[in-house]
Amino acid sequence: MTPHESYSTGETRGAQQMARGLCQVMGREISKGSFNTNIRQKITPSGTLQLPWSSINSVRTMAVLPWPFSSQPRDFSLPNSSWGSDMRHLYEHYNSQCEVETEEGEKKWGVWRRLPSYNRSLKYATGGVYLSKIIQSKARLFTRNIREQGAAFEYVMFVNKQEQKCVCVFQAGHLLEGPPGHVHGGAIATMIDTVTGTHATYLSGPVMTANLNINYRSPIPLGSTVLLTCSLDKKEGRKTFVSCQVTNTDGSKLHTEATGLPSSAVV
Amino acid sequence: MTPHESYSTGETRGAQQMARGLCQVMGREISKGSFNTNIRQKITPSGTLQLPWSSINSVRTMAVLPWPFSSQPRDFSLPNSSWGSDMRHLYEHYNSQCEVETEEGEKKWGVWRRLPSYNRSLKYATGGVYLSKIIQSKARLFTRNIREQGAAFEYVMFVNKQEQKCVCVFQAGHLLEGPPGHVHGGAIATMIDTVTGTHATYLSGPVMTANLNINYRSPIPLGSTVLLTCSLDKKEGRKTFVSCQVTNTDGSKLHTEATGLPSSAVV
Repeated sequence: MTPHESYSTGETRGAQQMARGLCQVMGREISKGSFNTNIRQKITPSGTLQLPWSSINSVRTMAVLPWPFSSQPRDFSLPNSSWGSDMRHLYEHYNSQCEVETEEGEKKWGVWRRLPSYNRSLKYATGGVYLSKIIQSKARLFTRNIREQGAAFEYVMFVNKQEQKCVCVFQAGHLLEGPPGHVHGGAIATMIDTVTGTHATYLSGPVMTANLNINYRSPIPLGSTVLLTCSLDKKEGRKTFVSCQVTNTDGSKLHTEATGLPSSAVV
Repeated sequence: MTPHESYSTGETRGAQQMARGLCQVMGREISKGSFNTNIRQKITPSGTLQLPWSSINSVRTMAVLPWPFSSQPRDFSLPNSSWGSDMRHLYEHYNSQCEVETEEGEKKWGVWRRLPSYNRSLKYATGGVYLSKIIQSKARLFTRNIREQGAAFEYVMFVNKQEQKCVCVFQAGHLLEGPPGHVHGGAIATMIDTVTGTHATYLSGPVMTANLNINYRSPIPLGSTVLLTCSLDKKEGRKTFVSCQVTNTDGSKLHTEATGLPSSAVV
């Protein structure tokens, strides 16, 4: 396997797990019976596994536990060598506010929290739809389906519960081209869907995207880093109205703006 | 290189061409000086090279010519072994209407035309934006950036000038996952952007997408084939209002509906 390979191969371990009749979620194995009640409630419309606020601590803890927790999958939202200076700078800006030190010298959570990100939220969901075993075992999250670092979607999300805000630092790789030298409108829509869905999940629990309304203002050069900022507009019953702006890194240039209507049921 | 590899590697030939100061468009080499007048006018906002109606014949002819035309890149809209029966059936349905036989036994164009599709519209566009040579040489169209057939976006578009209609047969591969077992909302948005942009280009000439408004009605199972149907709503000056429905193959189930506002200038 070359470093450029997509994530669709080399799944022998996955196939073995499937044969054992197990579901794998973020490295944790659970029995199929618990899927509907325990796991399905935590999947966003964009397929990202969204843990409730309270469980982020447990994810951190899991990483140091022995088997089966030692088989933690790669967290794609951590810095890698493909990240440019803009991406790293913004990452540090928000990440430094995730943990603060008290006067007593103790560390505690800050106002922001970084969200881990994996390439598959749930490996072997069957639901009510027939999917071939090949598709089940090879499926990968759309935004994390290219192995080569920096080639496609490089992004990290931070949420601020207090301000009901979510930001995403996004570096657009060379495989996301639309107009020559610029990012495809569909790739921008993909990031907006991901961020609005994630944000709404934190505000309202599990949701499905019902509507996206996107205004493209100015094209985004391929290879550049942009900031997606998502905020809550209003909540009406099961509907959560959110808005999202895509700007350059200092916020002085608006590339795209959108509204999203993630709903707890598709309207 | 494995068959699963993305299109970001092995570009030595491309790098050689770049060093020679040439632009390559669909296998044809043109001097940089002719870029603005001849080529730029034919690029859609989604980055697909859209030839005027009259030039499709010449593309067909090019394929049988000797060098440099013998280096024609792969046309991704032709059937391959990953296409399922639904995809093949719909392809045949529309493709059989692309060429009809007259009473005199001569062949002539039918009402539909299949659009060829490549993985890069224009290799070395620089425009007014600085892009590193690495990005320029490795960039690939977002919807055609995975080498493995059937893994991501398999699609073919047909246009009907007479009815001002465009259809796209789309088979969603396992690397497009959003919600477990279903297609990512961003991947659906990507296809809608591609089809509405292509359609508007045929109706109004080169455009940039200014707005997309998407309503998600029911999720699309991973691996399934759907039909995108795009029609003209109205034209107002430089704006072309189009609508697009994503349905199952017989049109009985609506998955997504959208309106697009491709404009000859970003509004």
